[in-house]
Amino acid sequence: MHRVKVDALTPEMSVPAREWRHLRVLRLRAGDTIRVFDGRGAEAEATVSALHEGGATLTLGASVEGAAETPQPVTLAIALLKGDKLADVTRAATELGVARIQLLTSRYADVPDIGPAKLERLRRIALEASKQSRRAVTPDVLAPIPVTQLRADGPAFIAHPGTHARLTDHLTWDAPVTVVSGPEGGWTDAEVTHLERAGFTPVTLGPRILRAETAPLALLGAIVATGV
Amino acid sequence: MHRVKVDALTPEMSVPAREWRHLRVLRLRAGDTIRVFDGRGAEAEATVSALHEGGATLTLGASVEGAAETPQPVTLAIALLKGDKLADVTRAATELGVARIQLLTSRYADVPDIGPAKLERLRRIALEASKQSRRAVTPDVLAPIPVTQLRADGPAFIAHPGTHARLTDHLTWDAPVTVVSGPEGGWTDAEVTHLERAGFTPVTLGPRILRAETAPLALLGAIVATGV
Repeated sequence: MHRVKVDALTPEMSVPAREWRHLRVLRLRAGDTIRVFDGRGAEAEATVSALHEGGATLTLGASVEGAAETPQPVTLAIALLKGDKLADVTRAATELGVARIQLLTSRYADVPDIGPAKLERLRRIALEASKQSRRAVTPDVLAPIPVTQLRADGPAFIAHPGTHARLTDHLTWDAPVTVVSGPEGGWTDAEVTHLERAGFTPVTLGPRILRAETAPLALLGAIVATGV
Repeated sequence: MHRVKVDALTPEMSVPAREWRHLRVLRLRAGDTIRVFDGRGAEAEATVSALHEGGATLTLGASVEGAAETPQPVTLAIALLKGDKLADVTRAATELGVARIQLLTSRYADVPDIGPAKLERLRRIALEASKQSRRAVTPDVLAPIPVTQLRADGPAFIAHPGTHARLTDHLTWDAPVTVVSGPEGGWTDAEVTHLERAGFTPVTLGPRILRAETAPLALLGAIVATGV
């Protein structure tokens, strides 16, 4: 069933222009049923009540339980990566249930910053991936902050080769969860010191060297494999 | 330190032609020290004893403990995927410690078969990724067999949306481990029945729909996050 993101679930809804071209190719007719979601966890059935040039009106139907979300929101905080790596991580992280992707600048990040066009592209990728993975939440992709300003508002983890601590042993769902993932060039000592002071728990991903685009998926894979 | 794959660790070794071009760009000189590994778990230091047109001779030094391998070999059995997806999975799965990648044909596989050139390319990718992740083992990439002929010779797992069983609860290291990952189009009922009879335990990756290239990394991520 086709899923359309709307601004809010209201009794009567217009299909936003950005969604309209997806709907057009389906050749929907008045009376057809689709799914609508607001990107913040609410999802419902909706009936096409009217079609007109360049748009459609939808009537809200029964709500659908948003069963695809983790018990608390998970944030992936990730250093800027080169080329399409950040796009690939955004897509997979969305499938793996993150609620938020916080981009980070850091001393050895692959690129120093990200432009508005690239940021917008990541947001579109997160939207598409949330639809394809049947989620009612579209992760926010937040403009970069320096890693030295990153705060943890609950259980927070950083992969570290030198530790034997396991993420899943420390995974309580009593507050939002954050996992942080570094650039190809690693963190500076000062950045590591900040993260430790900010309460990030070092956890193991085994003794091998993982690329910067593989490590975040391994961390998130470990979380989803617990069944959330 | 540069790592070179050799056929076997012997007192005197020739650098294979396929490795020579990597070494040339390093402008090594006689007396320089590098690492050699045989792709089956053995790794050692080696000294460049002689350089000549188109090759080099190495003298074996102290062996290095291969600490980067899981307690038992892990096999990723994966249905054929389209385009570069299989290359991406091979690269990441190698970093995540698999000893073997068994390709599978299946009813709804993205492509019906894989040619010798593409298979050879996957093997080169596994070799490169094993070097970059500092492994002494290069995963075998095995030509496809039908999924209905896949056997499990130890704990074996298949991701299944309908279960709450956790991979890590069933992960004993008393025999080689196998994880199986399906094609974008899923398995047929007959294929699922075969896998169940062959002893594959269904395990959860949460309630979301994962793409065929994300699910295997989540399964392997869950394994490495236990610290192996």
